[in-house]
Amino acid sequence: MSSNASVAPVGVGLIGLGTIGTGVAKVLAENAAVIEQRLGFPLRLVRIADLDLETDRGVDLSEIRFDSDSDGLIADPEVDIVIELIGGYGIAKKITLAAIDAGKHVVTANKALLALHGEEIFGAAQGKGVDVAFEAAVGGGIPVLRAVREGLAANQIESVLGILNGTTNYVLTEMERTGEAFDEVLKRAQELGYAEADPTFDVDGIDAAHKLALLAAMAFGAKMTFEDIPTEGIRGLLPIDFEMAEHLGYRLKLLGIAKSLHDADGSPRIDARIHPTMVPADSMLANVDGAMNAVAVTGNAVGPTLYYGAGAGELPTASAVVGDLMEIAREIRRGRAGRVAPLSYPANELVALPLAGTGELFGRCYLRFTALDRPGVLAHITGALGERGVGIESVFQEGHAEEGDSVPVVMLTHPAREEAIREAIDEIDRHSHVTEPTRLIRIEEEL
Amino acid sequence: MSSNASVAPVGVGLIGLGTIGTGVAKVLAENAAVIEQRLGFPLRLVRIADLDLETDRGVDLSEIRFDSDSDGLIADPEVDIVIELIGGYGIAKKITLAAIDAGKHVVTANKALLALHGEEIFGAAQGKGVDVAFEAAVGGGIPVLRAVREGLAANQIESVLGILNGTTNYVLTEMERTGEAFDEVLKRAQELGYAEADPTFDVDGIDAAHKLALLAAMAFGAKMTFEDIPTEGIRGLLPIDFEMAEHLGYRLKLLGIAKSLHDADGSPRIDARIHPTMVPADSMLANVDGAMNAVAVTGNAVGPTLYYGAGAGELPTASAVVGDLMEIAREIRRGRAGRVAPLSYPANELVALPLAGTGELFGRCYLRFTALDRPGVLAHITGALGERGVGIESVFQEGHAEEGDSVPVVMLTHPAREEAIREAIDEIDRHSHVTEPTRLIRIEEEL
Repeated sequence: MSSNASVAPVGVGLIGLGTIGTGVAKVLAENAAVIEQRLGFPLRLVRIADLDLETDRGVDLSEIRFDSDSDGLIADPEVDIVIELIGGYGIAKKITLAAIDAGKHVVTANKALLALHGEEIFGAAQGKGVDVAFEAAVGGGIPVLRAVREGLAANQIESVLGILNGTTNYVLTEMERTGEAFDEVLKRAQELGYAEADPTFDVDGIDAAHKLALLAAMAFGAKMTFEDIPTEGIRGLLPIDFEMAEHLGYRLKLLGIAKSLHDADGSPRIDARIHPTMVPADSMLANVDGAMNAVAVTGNAVGPTLYYGAGAGELPTASAVVGDLMEIAREIRRGRAGRVAPLSYPANELVALPLAGTGELFGRCYLRFTALDRPGVLAHITGALGERGVGIESVFQEGHAEEGDSVPVVMLTHPAREEAIREAIDEIDRHSHVTEPTRLIRIEEEL
Repeated sequence: MSSNASVAPVGVGLIGLGTIGTGVAKVLAENAAVIEQRLGFPLRLVRIADLDLETDRGVDLSEIRFDSDSDGLIADPEVDIVIELIGGYGIAKKITLAAIDAGKHVVTANKALLALHGEEIFGAAQGKGVDVAFEAAVGGGIPVLRAVREGLAANQIESVLGILNGTTNYVLTEMERTGEAFDEVLKRAQELGYAEADPTFDVDGIDAAHKLALLAAMAFGAKMTFEDIPTEGIRGLLPIDFEMAEHLGYRLKLLGIAKSLHDADGSPRIDARIHPTMVPADSMLANVDGAMNAVAVTGNAVGPTLYYGAGAGELPTASAVVGDLMEIAREIRRGRAGRVAPLSYPANELVALPLAGTGELFGRCYLRFTALDRPGVLAHITGALGERGVGIESVFQEGHAEEGDSVPVVMLTHPAREEAIREAIDEIDRHSHVTEPTRLIRIEEEL
């Protein structure tokens, strides 16, 4: 077929034959011709390890050694690259470190593992001179990490923000479209396979925080563990929030946001957070619907850029995993000993950057109060805000409640320090006519 | 600063100190710290060649040798990488080949040069074992070529399409926003610096065709020269076309489109073309406004993806050029001898793929007829279409003209073979009551 046909294949071992692992086996089989054409040699899946040897995955594995022996796979001299796709923190960490220790390159989609133990894993890889590639860990099939690491490498990155979780974006899109409550939409998403039986990681923003931690490390050269990132999920959003967002010219999205800040003395800080956000309806991010993901990256030279695609799913995620395999395989055949800087910065150049407190933030906010419909309530709310210098741009209250019932009151603030707004909310929520905790939703104007 | 501080800088020589060249000098100076931090060593701009030694570019060049001697720059042993930013086909080609011949790696933003002479240039680079990098040639600062070449390398690419020219997208956005005629908007764009004094390359779609030729070569492993691509620009679009597009739920964009097709016998073809296109108003591409660019790439594993950002301009384009410099510099310091496959496929694997004729296309079309307001005109138009099996979904005609004046009649066809529509238009336009050539605008539903 080509002048390179004599180059030996690079051998791949796959640990974890679940949804993504099966996708990887399918992509390697279905796209074998184009993969060999681009590389000049074949990628060969030589071995698979999984505990479940029975389930039919709908892909022909007859030519591949398939057993439950992950240790044997890692030690197999025919395996040049190990793909870790079992997920979680425990066994996945053990397997990843064992593969590195055996001198194998590793490809993984495991954001949780890297967000929690990245420093240890990247350090071990650097010590052994092997690659750890993880494009699939953020944005599924979207090659956004490559964009930050290489395409935008000439920039001081100013911000990275986006829709990093497809499950929550599906739920938000459906709540907006149907006007239904969170619980109803979540139940349907679970039935359709868009949400897991235990949706905590997704709907509470934890998965997005894992991904943001990786993105921010790469964008800013910052050591960051995801526990430090203030994280607020989509529970508690009500149909009225979507109605008001539309009325005000916004759409509601769960954003992961990381911005580079500088203190008065010039020392760097990172503003990183996960929360539901109102974004202008005509912005690119507002138009990312359903289970799709998008990441906006702004650099001081390139200005705003955006990367969009499927953030999860069998084949899109496999596309990223196999793309990483191809990059490593090409370097193996060129005799190169491993990427030195999986986070774009050499591992010993990563610095611990302090996080900005959310109280330091400044901007417009959407506030939804739930209060008994009594005289003086509005005066009390506006008074508590006004005392702290928080101006009110508009107030919405529709209808009247029966005696003893609550009504929602929505306010849009002028740009203000979030600390002042939170203090006002604390005071307001202590009052007996306020029947539920006030909901604050941040507004991002510049997208 | 780091454990790598002892690694010697990589030397860069810049030929052409115009807008983009000045941007490159600025980015190398302003972002020197982050560039060195990411690479582990500095990139040093050691020499610049340009015929204009007088103009103040607003950047400090006091430490850089600056003269008009491009031959001397290429031969300079301190120059490891040559940046070609003079543009055009003639001298640029000579300089690029001379640099390659001298064993220098080359970075260029010159899509015209590569679209016309890519095969010769990439062949020479392969022979010499040097890199030719050109991320800036398509999509300005957007790292879309890297995405196609590496991030999506595991995919059979099904289509690449997008807004590839910022000038025309600015003009279309302004025509839509203001309702003004093409000539007025173009004049203002020229005054504002969004369009050149001679706007031909941009408004007639030639620049977009250059870029599409490069994208398609990379996506499909196809040899393709841009002359083969049917190209239609934005001249002749009228305010009514924008009104009707809005009414029908579309927006008007100049798209470059390349799709992978297969004949009945399975042999591959490419459907490639540049033309104004109606795209669904809620699609991501429809929301790309002003001088911004976006490219949508669909792969058989990843599904649809999209890349958005500034497609031109001093600093965004420089961001891409310097990103390429960093990638090559890193490989130089690792002792690697040059990228083998600048088009994602090894140069000897590129195949000549036949183009689909536009007549073969199948889809819905927008047709604008200009005819005298006389009895029988509508019957004649619909008859000519109906005889060829072209169904009409809707007809719009507003108002009546004075005797002897023409009125526009707009029709939306059902999906039909474009060949049949074009035959009908030929017949219709021969008739004396049709006073201007009929305008056909294609509709892309799947975005």
